[in-house]
Amino acid sequence: MTRITQLQQAMGDVDAVVLRLAENILLATGYWLQIGGLGMVVVPREGSPTLVIPDYEQQDASTHWGGAIETFPIIRFDAGPAGAAIERILRGVASDLGVQGGRRIGFEGSFETIGLPTFTGEANAVAAPTQALIRATFETETLVDVTGMLETVRLVKTDEEIARIRLTNEIAGLGLEAFKEHAVAGRTEAEVAAAVDAAIVSGGHGHKGARVVRSYATVWSGPETESAWQYFRHRARRIEPDDVVMVELGTVVDGFWADHTRTVVAGRATERQREALAAVTAGIDAAFAACRGGAVARDVDAASRAACQELGFTQFPHHTGHGLGFRYHEARPQLVPGSDHELLDGMIVAVEPGIYDAEVGGIRWEDDAVVTPTGAVRLVESGYALD
Amino acid sequence: MTRITQLQQAMGDVDAVVLRLAENILLATGYWLQIGGLGMVVVPREGSPTLVIPDYEQQDASTHWGGAIETFPIIRFDAGPAGAAIERILRGVASDLGVQGGRRIGFEGSFETIGLPTFTGEANAVAAPTQALIRATFETETLVDVTGMLETVRLVKTDEEIARIRLTNEIAGLGLEAFKEHAVAGRTEAEVAAAVDAAIVSGGHGHKGARVVRSYATVWSGPETESAWQYFRHRARRIEPDDVVMVELGTVVDGFWADHTRTVVAGRATERQREALAAVTAGIDAAFAACRGGAVARDVDAASRAACQELGFTQFPHHTGHGLGFRYHEARPQLVPGSDHELLDGMIVAVEPGIYDAEVGGIRWEDDAVVTPTGAVRLVESGYALD
Repeated sequence: MTRITQLQQAMGDVDAVVLRLAENILLATGYWLQIGGLGMVVVPREGSPTLVIPDYEQQDASTHWGGAIETFPIIRFDAGPAGAAIERILRGVASDLGVQGGRRIGFEGSFETIGLPTFTGEANAVAAPTQALIRATFETETLVDVTGMLETVRLVKTDEEIARIRLTNEIAGLGLEAFKEHAVAGRTEAEVAAAVDAAIVSGGHGHKGARVVRSYATVWSGPETESAWQYFRHRARRIEPDDVVMVELGTVVDGFWADHTRTVVAGRATERQREALAAVTAGIDAAFAACRGGAVARDVDAASRAACQELGFTQFPHHTGHGLGFRYHEARPQLVPGSDHELLDGMIVAVEPGIYDAEVGGIRWEDDAVVTPTGAVRLVESGYALD
Repeated sequence: MTRITQLQQAMGDVDAVVLRLAENILLATGYWLQIGGLGMVVVPREGSPTLVIPDYEQQDASTHWGGAIETFPIIRFDAGPAGAAIERILRGVASDLGVQGGRRIGFEGSFETIGLPTFTGEANAVAAPTQALIRATFETETLVDVTGMLETVRLVKTDEEIARIRLTNEIAGLGLEAFKEHAVAGRTEAEVAAAVDAAIVSGGHGHKGARVVRSYATVWSGPETESAWQYFRHRARRIEPDDVVMVELGTVVDGFWADHTRTVVAGRATERQREALAAVTAGIDAAFAACRGGAVARDVDAASRAACQELGFTQFPHHTGHGLGFRYHEARPQLVPGSDHELLDGMIVAVEPGIYDAEVGGIRWEDDAVVTPTGAVRLVESGYALD
């Protein structure tokens, strides 16, 4: 069943959905938009969808999407205003599909977290202007927030999507290896982060057909890693001998995300630090083993914490993990205490137990895996230890 | 006059505004949020504003913001749900300010383009959930979209903001120099982009007090630069001798943005290419000369095109430039044909004329400048030529 068929079956009494976010256009068409907002896909409950994009995206898009494409000129002022062209196209699509005039039209009303398009530095969201555009062109006052439906449809990845997320993980692996190489005494945190990103971007483009690769590494080091359970930002701080060094890494390849953490010691790890990493590793293994289709997220979380505990450590009370793939972090499943989210075969999950205290500093490790009937299977391995 | 006073004076009949986007919290408080969405500032028309942030941001935030701060625990599941804590705080703030119950509360209703927070890879927007939160905690059905007000207030930068944008430009300059050094035959586009980003991130942190530096370079090369007026994405393509190579570069330092483009030839430029760069440079100079407080944007655009024309080239019909600073691209002013936006002293503008044809390839150059009574003054220079 194609993604389009799934969306159509999930629409209920909604007559058509208009998707504008890069992550949702990717879901529907397989194509990762260049500039978010400058593109839309209209998916009717009955009939064929149309992708509406800038003319300069047509060639790229058609290699991923075999359906109808309508284009408009933009980023140039010699072809009339883009807004008017987009309106004209949407009116035509709505009319051709027979969903114009008082129908129920779905939109991305509650996406407050947004995956980036290929153009970085700015994201595009769906707010009042998009709603006004839909109202005007579909001639309706009945806009329906379909955020929950989209989050549900994307929970389980297709085989092709899993292959693409696996590729992202492989390319992320270039950065994880670079981290181990560069996280040494004398380097600044910022230099290590830059080296990780450079390894991924330089080595990733063209790797097994990867077209667009972006990397978002953040590195922290030293005694302050004790509080690395919170979000951190790299500094000009120079790594000292025997410092703990941690990288938090988001990688995206053609729209599909990976999420990793690694911790190393820039010198010689203490016995207690080694034990902490062993506990974290056991926590990951236990969580992945528990991630079988049909399992409940709170049990996965509990399994991870129990495994840490068994080795004499308390896993920190941040989440054990989360779903991902179309975004760095998807809303579901949440692998946290009390979560009733169900694990399903074909989900992608990230698991990231951490131990943080004054004695060991911060030790966290994070891998991505695909959920199967016999547990979740890691998408990339890295063989190195703490030091 | 402080930013808070300006916002209060611009509020009209709105009783308070609730700002959640990183760029707007930065405007109000000077603080660049770590994770967008996990933070808000409430600015009443009368009385003192309150910044509401995760507890782990308190120390950093208080170095930028001297006003009231309320904090909540988050990213950990041993301190109660964050959502409930945020609601409780907002209710208290609304009540204390006397703006609870049927009042007019402003929100960021039309921000469809979003500046990133320090945590990259994901952005946060304001959609239905934030509106519901404001309705519930301020006990009102009257939400007012204050996007236009915010865009107006931030048009003219304060002296401190100009200094910070100047610092961003200086740090961007590290990347512009790295581009010249690395854009040589044999390198891939992706490698050159990685080197530019690495130079900025490695060299920027700690430079004159810069705390958090992010860089977003995109590089393109070869004959296809003829269509580099559109958005491009770097590839694994290896630069060949005498190729044109272009970088599009966004840099952000502690929330303040710069936007640059450079073009070089990886070998020896042709005479016609040199003439094209001379025309582009003349186009920038003419635009900056026309950017005096009181000028109208269409005249700035026209001045740039006329200067290109005088040297025998037609500037491409994309925009001549745009405002920036709180974002990579601000909505106003637009330096485009027909624009009636007024230039004001203290605005920051980017100007980026380009010439694209089969003979020269794509030649674009972009600098940022601050508008003064005698024309706009560049924020960073780079002395190098095409080859």
